[in-house]
Amino acid sequence: MRASDPVRSNQTYMSNKRVYLFREGNATMRDLLGGKGANLAEMTNIGLPVPPGFTITTEVCNEYHKVGNQLPAGLMDETRSALADLEKSLGKTFGDPDNPLLVSVRSGAKFSMPGMMDTVLNLGLNDETVDALVKVQDARFVYDSYRRLIMMLSDVAYSDTHPGMGKHDFEVIFAALKTELGVSGDLEIDAGGMKELCKRFEAHVLKVTGTPFPQDPQVQLQAAIEAVFRSWNNERAIIYRRREKISDDIGTAVNVQAMVFGNRGDDCGTGVAFTRNAATGENHVFGEYLMNAQGEDVVAGVRTPVHIDELERQNPEIYRQFKAVCDKLERHYRDMQDIEFTIEHGKLFILQCRTGKRTGPAAIKIAVDMVAEGLINKEEAVLRIDPELLNHCLLPVISPGTKYNVLAKGLPAGPGAATGIAIFDAETAAELGKGGKDQKVILVRAETSPDDLKGMLAAQGVLTEKGGMTSHAALVARGFGIPTVAGCSDISVSSARKEFTVAGRTIKEGDVISLNGGLGEVIDGAVPVEEPKLTGDFNVFMGWADEYRKLGVRTNADTPADTALAIRFGAEGIGLCRTEHMFFEGERRPVVQRMILADDDAERQSALDELLVFQRADFVGIYEALEGRPMTVRLIDPPLHEFLPSLEVLIGEVAVLKSQGKSDPEKEALLEAVESMHEINPMMGLRGCRLSIVFPQIVQMQTRAILEGAAEVIRKGGKAVPEIMIPLVGHVNELKFVREKLEATAREVVKEQGVEIPYVFGTMIEVPRGAITADEIAVEAEFFSFGTNDLTQMTYGFSRDDSDRFLKPYVSQKILPGDPFESIDQSGVGVLMEMAVTKGKAVKPWLKLGICGEHGGEPRSIEFCHKIGLNYVSCSPYRVPIARLAAAQAALNERVKVVVRDK
Amino acid sequence: MRASDPVRSNQTYMSNKRVYLFREGNATMRDLLGGKGANLAEMTNIGLPVPPGFTITTEVCNEYHKVGNQLPAGLMDETRSALADLEKSLGKTFGDPDNPLLVSVRSGAKFSMPGMMDTVLNLGLNDETVDALVKVQDARFVYDSYRRLIMMLSDVAYSDTHPGMGKHDFEVIFAALKTELGVSGDLEIDAGGMKELCKRFEAHVLKVTGTPFPQDPQVQLQAAIEAVFRSWNNERAIIYRRREKISDDIGTAVNVQAMVFGNRGDDCGTGVAFTRNAATGENHVFGEYLMNAQGEDVVAGVRTPVHIDELERQNPEIYRQFKAVCDKLERHYRDMQDIEFTIEHGKLFILQCRTGKRTGPAAIKIAVDMVAEGLINKEEAVLRIDPELLNHCLLPVISPGTKYNVLAKGLPAGPGAATGIAIFDAETAAELGKGGKDQKVILVRAETSPDDLKGMLAAQGVLTEKGGMTSHAALVARGFGIPTVAGCSDISVSSARKEFTVAGRTIKEGDVISLNGGLGEVIDGAVPVEEPKLTGDFNVFMGWADEYRKLGVRTNADTPADTALAIRFGAEGIGLCRTEHMFFEGERRPVVQRMILADDDAERQSALDELLVFQRADFVGIYEALEGRPMTVRLIDPPLHEFLPSLEVLIGEVAVLKSQGKSDPEKEALLEAVESMHEINPMMGLRGCRLSIVFPQIVQMQTRAILEGAAEVIRKGGKAVPEIMIPLVGHVNELKFVREKLEATAREVVKEQGVEIPYVFGTMIEVPRGAITADEIAVEAEFFSFGTNDLTQMTYGFSRDDSDRFLKPYVSQKILPGDPFESIDQSGVGVLMEMAVTKGKAVKPWLKLGICGEHGGEPRSIEFCHKIGLNYVSCSPYRVPIARLAAAQAALNERVKVVVRDK
Repeated sequence: MRASDPVRSNQTYMSNKRVYLFREGNATMRDLLGGKGANLAEMTNIGLPVPPGFTITTEVCNEYHKVGNQLPAGLMDETRSALADLEKSLGKTFGDPDNPLLVSVRSGAKFSMPGMMDTVLNLGLNDETVDALVKVQDARFVYDSYRRLIMMLSDVAYSDTHPGMGKHDFEVIFAALKTELGVSGDLEIDAGGMKELCKRFEAHVLKVTGTPFPQDPQVQLQAAIEAVFRSWNNERAIIYRRREKISDDIGTAVNVQAMVFGNRGDDCGTGVAFTRNAATGENHVFGEYLMNAQGEDVVAGVRTPVHIDELERQNPEIYRQFKAVCDKLERHYRDMQDIEFTIEHGKLFILQCRTGKRTGPAAIKIAVDMVAEGLINKEEAVLRIDPELLNHCLLPVISPGTKYNVLAKGLPAGPGAATGIAIFDAETAAELGKGGKDQKVILVRAETSPDDLKGMLAAQGVLTEKGGMTSHAALVARGFGIPTVAGCSDISVSSARKEFTVAGRTIKEGDVISLNGGLGEVIDGAVPVEEPKLTGDFNVFMGWADEYRKLGVRTNADTPADTALAIRFGAEGIGLCRTEHMFFEGERRPVVQRMILADDDAERQSALDELLVFQRADFVGIYEALEGRPMTVRLIDPPLHEFLPSLEVLIGEVAVLKSQGKSDPEKEALLEAVESMHEINPMMGLRGCRLSIVFPQIVQMQTRAILEGAAEVIRKGGKAVPEIMIPLVGHVNELKFVREKLEATAREVVKEQGVEIPYVFGTMIEVPRGAITADEIAVEAEFFSFGTNDLTQMTYGFSRDDSDRFLKPYVSQKILPGDPFESIDQSGVGVLMEMAVTKGKAVKPWLKLGICGEHGGEPRSIEFCHKIGLNYVSCSPYRVPIARLAAAQAALNERVKVVVRDK
Repeated sequence: MRASDPVRSNQTYMSNKRVYLFREGNATMRDLLGGKGANLAEMTNIGLPVPPGFTITTEVCNEYHKVGNQLPAGLMDETRSALADLEKSLGKTFGDPDNPLLVSVRSGAKFSMPGMMDTVLNLGLNDETVDALVKVQDARFVYDSYRRLIMMLSDVAYSDTHPGMGKHDFEVIFAALKTELGVSGDLEIDAGGMKELCKRFEAHVLKVTGTPFPQDPQVQLQAAIEAVFRSWNNERAIIYRRREKISDDIGTAVNVQAMVFGNRGDDCGTGVAFTRNAATGENHVFGEYLMNAQGEDVVAGVRTPVHIDELERQNPEIYRQFKAVCDKLERHYRDMQDIEFTIEHGKLFILQCRTGKRTGPAAIKIAVDMVAEGLINKEEAVLRIDPELLNHCLLPVISPGTKYNVLAKGLPAGPGAATGIAIFDAETAAELGKGGKDQKVILVRAETSPDDLKGMLAAQGVLTEKGGMTSHAALVARGFGIPTVAGCSDISVSSARKEFTVAGRTIKEGDVISLNGGLGEVIDGAVPVEEPKLTGDFNVFMGWADEYRKLGVRTNADTPADTALAIRFGAEGIGLCRTEHMFFEGERRPVVQRMILADDDAERQSALDELLVFQRADFVGIYEALEGRPMTVRLIDPPLHEFLPSLEVLIGEVAVLKSQGKSDPEKEALLEAVESMHEINPMMGLRGCRLSIVFPQIVQMQTRAILEGAAEVIRKGGKAVPEIMIPLVGHVNELKFVREKLEATAREVVKEQGVEIPYVFGTMIEVPRGAITADEIAVEAEFFSFGTNDLTQMTYGFSRDDSDRFLKPYVSQKILPGDPFESIDQSGVGVLMEMAVTKGKAVKPWLKLGICGEHGGEPRSIEFCHKIGLNYVSCSPYRVPIARLAAAQAALNERVKVVVRDK
């Protein structure tokens, strides 16, 4: 996936064919066949051992939902002919009691949504085929397979309409039987026990639904197909799509495939593997398998599987075959693959392959290695990595040298370090964590299931007792960059008691623990974390990105520390230094209040003189951190009342005093002042340059601080390149007025200080009128910086502070294609930006153009900024590498498009 | 003047000539010579008896201010040569003790600013010339002239820098002398007394300034010229220019002219006259004069002058000459003229002519008459009248049949009726009246002076004891449409005691009085007022306007009464019916609150059902008033919290209760609800169509009310043409979503009601994004209506509620050319409007386009709307005639420009 795509969706096909045999498709048909279907087809055609099957297209899914959950007429006929093809090639017949064909039914959308939708295995079993099969196969296995079918099909196809048909209900029956039989593990139950279980499951179905479990394999198949289609719209799938920006319109395909069994004995097994290490990128097959198990057992994390290297010892021939498949697939797809396989009686089958999800560090190592191996070139390497993945490389690590108490060790399933309180259910984690009450929580589960997604996303980190590196939980956690320790069998989790025990200790809900995802460590208490060292591969890769990109990348920073961090991440200067942030800091705020509430000019000036000392020192620190790189400083922007106490609080306090017949003249005067400064719509009130026009002393002080600071640095032999930015300009005269006043101050300071300071003045383009009249404004500005937060607010008339109540429904009801505060609204706000660029450059071709709204760190917006010809983007320090990569990709994508056009 | 001009200013001249003799100029040179200078030149050249003189150009004034109040080098030399020309033609020499030339120095800008700047008369007198003159002329007159010079020149040239040199200081000395001499009137003082007065005045000057009164006529002249230039920037001149939208850059010219004297005896006199009646338009010379007086005596209103008709009896020959001059000037200028004249020893001199200011009714009558007389054509008539003047025709009159008690009668100086409390100084009037505390006040003055301007503008009406129909006070009051009774000699005003007496009664400050401006009546107490009947001439004239205009004119109205009024004024439908206004009315508000605070849907629906009954009845009334004309109804727009009690008040109340240990659960719940709905920037919050998306029930109810009301009217045989307008659309999907929902409701109602209702849906273009994406939005809209209030707010990022603190300084410091909420900001907001028109029409050529912001009634904005091709403008009822005329002028101006281009 590429985050720089807009909402991801399918191309439209006009096709009457609704069912494709695997041999009829290929890897390019992902829109129609889904990723899994297209890859099964591709693998079939390149000669890999894929059990035969067919794919029902994504269009059928859309049709199904469009007409209110109804399969299109004729579909089951097409399905039956495809089945006939399978029957012919395998010499088995679906529903034939003598030699029954069994099939699986799996979802598969264009973009991988691991575990979010439903799967049903073993279709084709019924009382009759079971009876026939037990005569020729291991009876326990046959009954086990049937009981699994009853449970899965009941759960996915009937539990929505019939409470009591859920997986859990069947597990209760299973547990009761085990108790009766005096056994604890599944494997201890013999064929007779399993047969009894099938009977009890069938009886349960009849009791709950009033009808027997469907015996007709065609009925089973149709029920399973419909269940998969319906699962496209289950809650966890919807949440996942929102998060991953996948369109709701693309639908899922359904893959029907002949069953192979990994659970038919000790010469059977099933596994999942990556062609390279998904966590580190190491070029070594990496995966896990379980002998005598079905795929779900590995993926669901119920049993902790064995590392793939073990297979080499256990079965060198199968391992050799498997390694050859890995190599072939990697060369074929020219990317690391994620492969599902099954061994049935010593024969290897490949059930799925897809481009493997990987952590940021792994993505970088793989890309750099593959370039070295000659598999891909540098451009491909740069284009291949989702910029957002770089976040993983910047995740904090435990400060080196820290001593800490390791409670247990598990698998290093997701990188990074995290500290938080232990929480034992996803609901509570979602409630307390990110997006909720913003507490730091670690979600601890025996095993995680897709239902836990919400809670995982809200957590700082995830810890599971069971499940391997390729369990869904680990996979999802890694995809989202959540520090995760999985399969930590040292601990024993009880979600009922909300605690886990480890070596005699008990950690209860609310106790603080830490995770070291990189090493799989579970730690007692909190640990100090810090920025990671950036590795050689990271720097090589980012160097390539820098070769291609045309956009400069600056950072938004107000402190020397943030500045230094951003420069380590590759920032080429500061694009936005917010001066008012400096006003909010502890000891300064009273001085700022004194300045605002001053009765006369002398009092105001004395407060400003104090602030000058603070601000000058701030700027000196930032100049030094910048080491000669440019700094765009925005003059004070927010309305002054933001620095004063809250009106509502004061009203309450004074009302209470008055009702008690008391009086506090100071407080009353403060209330009066705050009331007089109160604004109905402060966003469009006395702020930005308006403030500078009405109270010029503040920005005169700021200009003085900026330039005196620069002089100090320059005198010490350093370099300082201040670019003074006047905000909220809508009419050229505003800029002209303020600029002229400040240039007078600037000339004065330069004269006093006796050093040359290379300052320039420019403006933000953040009100629509600024963009519309950019030709006039450019005359007075040496640079423009797009303030796209405010520009979006005013272009839409959306107050960001208040927009939650309508913007969320807007996005979820698809009234807007996305949140315009996240990614630039190119057809609205973007039109104004382009207008400003065109008009500004028309009068001043050398005009420097940047963006400093939050969009400056968002890949799709960065591509847009590249397209309209900005000189740089500016973003928060942690997004600097992302912006560098996104900028490179924008430049490369443009080149590709140019090539296409040249053809 | 034409209000549809932008800020009025001069064309630029590049000329080295700075002084023009009257015979060197002409009427087209108003930019350079000012109106007065250009007309003096024109009159000189067409052979009227104008005393010779010359004009110093407006450019010199600008130069003077640019270099910090310094006359340009060489100017006084040029002035001296021009003086030499005068000396030659009159056979007198400036400063010559034997036969001195005396001159006046007067201001004169391009646009008339009556009385706002300074004048000095009798320059050239000094001790020496006075001594010489008394030998050959009436000694009393000579001394009287000199003492006037001392006082005037001291006041205008020196009082700024020397307190004690003001007019008042000299008047104190004059009064003391009168007391000493035991006389009361000026005329009782003989030559000796006047000579003594001159001595005392000179002594006073020496005492205050340390130097003697300047004896060198050249020094006097230069001081007077500079004083006139400086007076361009005195406070009252600046206020006047703001009010009249005259640019500060155009400067004033200075006219230096040989003195003629109306105060040299009984065969002398001076007067001011209009060629037609400025109050009624009657075609009869109308004016006033005083024998043996100087011009200032008439203009300043110190003595109540005699009607010009009297002159015919007193001096038929002079009257005949004067009438001939009037006729010649009116034919020459093809417009009613305002003429200043002086008679010196039986000889008539014309000192000034200019296009006469007139009331709205007069303007209409004159225009209609002049068309009938063949002096101008209909197009000229329509183009000539400032649309704002039509306001005068719509001023309220006392309800016919009302009995009231007339206290006194004066001159009917300004039309209309007014009631208010009597206030005796301009300061207090400004404080209490319009723009202040908005009380209704009547300003009562013995005589008004230009200093009273602020107070007059704040008053409902003006009453003066002295001064005629052409006094400054009357002129200004009439120009601004302030009901005014002038020269009401029945009353005796004491500003010291703040009262006036009339026939033994005393009216004190704060007592309520009324004025009937049309009849010059002063009335005891309040009177009921009503709309005037519109006269035949008005209808004829507006008929002409309607012939030319292309824009439709609708009205903004929410009640049947407003609708009926607007239709009387010529509205062709409703362009904006604000449905929420109906929600604010008394008995409905609790129901609205119940709807908003409802706990469940049933409760909400029951409140909405109640509101439906109200709204339906409202719409029926409006449809009936419209008699089949279209009505654009805007669905609910403001945030819901506007209908709830104030958050601040509730906070105070609950805080007090809590501090007293009391509890009021209902109030606390209300506070909680209000708090939860509170918005930081409600202007950009949950309002407009956003509200309709989040709470669709409200607009479903409104749609039902609109259409059920229409059905009711149609069933009764009437006609109803509802256009349903969805506000605040920024993205086409918003419109689509709401429209689809409401069309379902609409179809339902039509089906229920069983009648055809010709409804359409459209939208407002009022957020910038709406304009930018108008091509997308037009697909879903049958009409656009520009909401230029909000569009201006968001394009500039100016919250109108909060903009006072910066918008006023912006306008006064000329950062903005004007208030964008008054007249459309054509280079910003206008660009978006044009974009919307172009893009909208591109996809839907028949798209109906209108404007319903307040700009829809402002002439310059209307011209812009015409230019960009809107179909109609909509404005408040009282502005409908103004809009009709402005629309006609826009069409005619375009035609003129087309003709020019065709040449």
